Amino acid sequence: MRILVLNSGSSSIKFQLFDMPSAQVLCSGLVERIGLENAKINYKTDTQDIEKEMDIPDHKIGLELIASFLLDTGIGVIASASEIQVVGHRVVHGGSTFAKTVEINDEVKQKIEKLSALAPLHNPANLQGILVSEEIFTNAKQVAVFDTAFHQTMPVEAYKYAIPNSFLNEHDIRVYGFHGTSHKYVSEQAIEYLGKQNSKIITIHLGNGCSMTAVKNGNSVDHTLGFAPMNGLIMGTRSGDIDPAVIFYMVKSLGYSLDEVNSLLQKESGMLGLTGFSDLRDIESNAEKGNVDCQQALKMNAYRIKKFIGAYAAAMNGVDAIVFTAGIGENSDVMRNLVCSELDYLGIQLDQEKNKVRSKEIRDISKDTSKVKILVIPTNEELEIAKQSMELLE
Amino acid sequence: MRILVLNSGSSSIKFQLFDMPSAQVLCSGLVERIGLENAKINYKTDTQDIEKEMDIPDHKIGLELIASFLLDTGIGVIASASEIQVVGHRVVHGGSTFAKTVEINDEVKQKIEKLSALAPLHNPANLQGILVSEEIFTNAKQVAVFDTAFHQTMPVEAYKYAIPNSFLNEHDIRVYGFHGTSHKYVSEQAIEYLGKQNSKIITIHLGNGCSMTAVKNGNSVDHTLGFAPMNGLIMGTRSGDIDPAVIFYMVKSLGYSLDEVNSLLQKESGMLGLTGFSDLRDIESNAEKGNVDCQQALKMNAYRIKKFIGAYAAAMNGVDAIVFTAGIGENSDVMRNLVCSELDYLGIQLDQEKNKVRSKEIRDISKDTSKVKILVIPTNEELEIAKQSMELLE
Repeated sequence: MRILVLNSGSSSIKFQLFDMPSAQVLCSGLVERIGLENAKINYKTDTQDIEKEMDIPDHKIGLELIASFLLDTGIGVIASASEIQVVGHRVVHGGSTFAKTVEINDEVKQKIEKLSALAPLHNPANLQGILVSEEIFTNAKQVAVFDTAFHQTMPVEAYKYAIPNSFLNEHDIRVYGFHGTSHKYVSEQAIEYLGKQNSKIITIHLGNGCSMTAVKNGNSVDHTLGFAPMNGLIMGTRSGDIDPAVIFYMVKSLGYSLDEVNSLLQKESGMLGLTGFSDLRDIESNAEKGNVDCQQALKMNAYRIKKFIGAYAAAMNGVDAIVFTAGIGENSDVMRNLVCSELDYLGIQLDQEKNKVRSKEIRDISKDTSKVKILVIPTNEELEIAKQSMELLE
Repeated sequence: MRILVLNSGSSSIKFQLFDMPSAQVLCSGLVERIGLENAKINYKTDTQDIEKEMDIPDHKIGLELIASFLLDTGIGVIASASEIQVVGHRVVHGGSTFAKTVEINDEVKQKIEKLSALAPLHNPANLQGILVSEEIFTNAKQVAVFDTAFHQTMPVEAYKYAIPNSFLNEHDIRVYGFHGTSHKYVSEQAIEYLGKQNSKIITIHLGNGCSMTAVKNGNSVDHTLGFAPMNGLIMGTRSGDIDPAVIFYMVKSLGYSLDEVNSLLQKESGMLGLTGFSDLRDIESNAEKGNVDCQQALKMNAYRIKKFIGAYAAAMNGVDAIVFTAGIGENSDVMRNLVCSELDYLGIQLDQEKNKVRSKEIRDISKDTSKVKILVIPTNEELEIAKQSMELLE
């Protein structure tokens, strides 16, 4: 079965074509700067890696371009568009409406559009990708996989805010959680690795966005991101948790507009605001050279992760494994070491040597004496979307 | 030594006169509704409990009234105002300027005034009390005890927000922490009770305001309240932690003004917003009768406390004791039970029988097998202010 996975952003389309269930990637790539100058497409197969600047005025032309590359007699990997049986779409916000992956029909599209109120930057772009895909891959089933769906199992004490009930009942203000596809994927991998279905796992997704999930018996029971993807951990440019009083103070006493504060907390804060750098590798190398801001920022970042590990161990009354994933989680032994140091009270003991090994495989980096396994598991959101799309249609 | 402790609010003055070091309370009381209709004074001694409605137009007249009661030949407890050697003032915000209790001079008063920017509702009233007290108790030393001072030992990873450094360096935006006098008092009592100076203690102050402190070797190392006393735990009318995105959404999409959102989060949220009740006893009795909102609110409240216990156990890599204090912490066996249930992974085991005993004494309510002691310690902020005032002048 050929499954095309699409992740449509406001000016980009990421794509990956899978042969399933073998999970072989036939090709992958990215259309970017749609509607802007210097738009381009990148297209990769086992033997090719092509990048071309082209005029790409809208998503329709972007997706047609992808199709033409897929079908090209020289570099293409399929002979006809009808070979693609399923298109799996990443959709950011499924609200409380979608707790699962669904096949797309008119009602689903209407609901995704309605949920744009909660994700104005993402859902319209995701929907745009769906509409264009329906026109081009007319024979394929269209499937929506939601970033929020995995977290719909959270109990009320984890998803409700302590504000008047009307804000939940009438305005849907609650914790939704994000990065669900990644947390689901790595927690399932961890369960398989541990061979333990009834398990307590804490997944730590550290990429440009960062979040953690408490996963009990395979279900998300708590999560660091909330109503929108801006709170919780310290991220590349986002502040994560901050006393709301700071927002009121910035506006009332320092004269910022509310839009400026929002932009400040989302785009100029986090590791960038603390250090001037947004790439963790720069921060690590400068910290090593003695840059105090960089040293502090690493400490702050790790300290917050550490506290959520403790919080989730309390929430689940135990933890069998913690899982590091995504760019930073998979590659930064420095961050993993800072997070896992001095946590033996919780049964967490890192093996320094194992931590330094670089690999693309699942690996256990805990000491043999560690009660809690510390795992590094490469995430693969595209594969998870393909898997879920396939499972839905079987 | 006679020490008068004053806590001046915007329209009230709480007072308590101690004989020190015996810690005997000679009299106590409250002047309230200063400048408003139906102003009144309450005055208590061992044998008297007097309440009188009077015309009390300002703080000066309020404090003169207190002095006249103290000196009254019938109900008074001192013969001359000069018998009071020290007046200890509660001051809410000491910023990063005051890490300790200080004797008040002109410079201190200027700094307290300057810090009004960070505590506009409290510091001006506290200063007002100091100025009036200097006029009336001319022979007494005036001492300032700050709510924030105890938390000045927090390390940078606990007090710094992940926003651009200029907000800390130029605008003093950071975690200050509050209820410091209470957390210091009960943590010192706990250390004495445990007989263990090098200890890891989590103090849980649950009153109308609620907060928790991680106390390592006698020093505050982390705390749930931040820049202002509004985040962290769920309180009587305050939301505690909430995704900042909710604030932006309420203004941008729901049409609230920023002032309305501030007021909503501070005065209409928390237990009141979730249940319609602000007194925990009403919530507990309605929960027992089957009110689902009340049941959920109790669960949410306890769940958040539980997560901070885990977070601070991780932050300190261990915990010797958790301490419940203040109105709810001292009196609600229901809340203590909800908080301590299913935490044996952290070594916390509540003894159900001991938990139900009501007492004004320090007590250990953990099982004999519990690795972590669970203590109930009545707080006494006034006594702590008297103690610190005395120690400063010795």
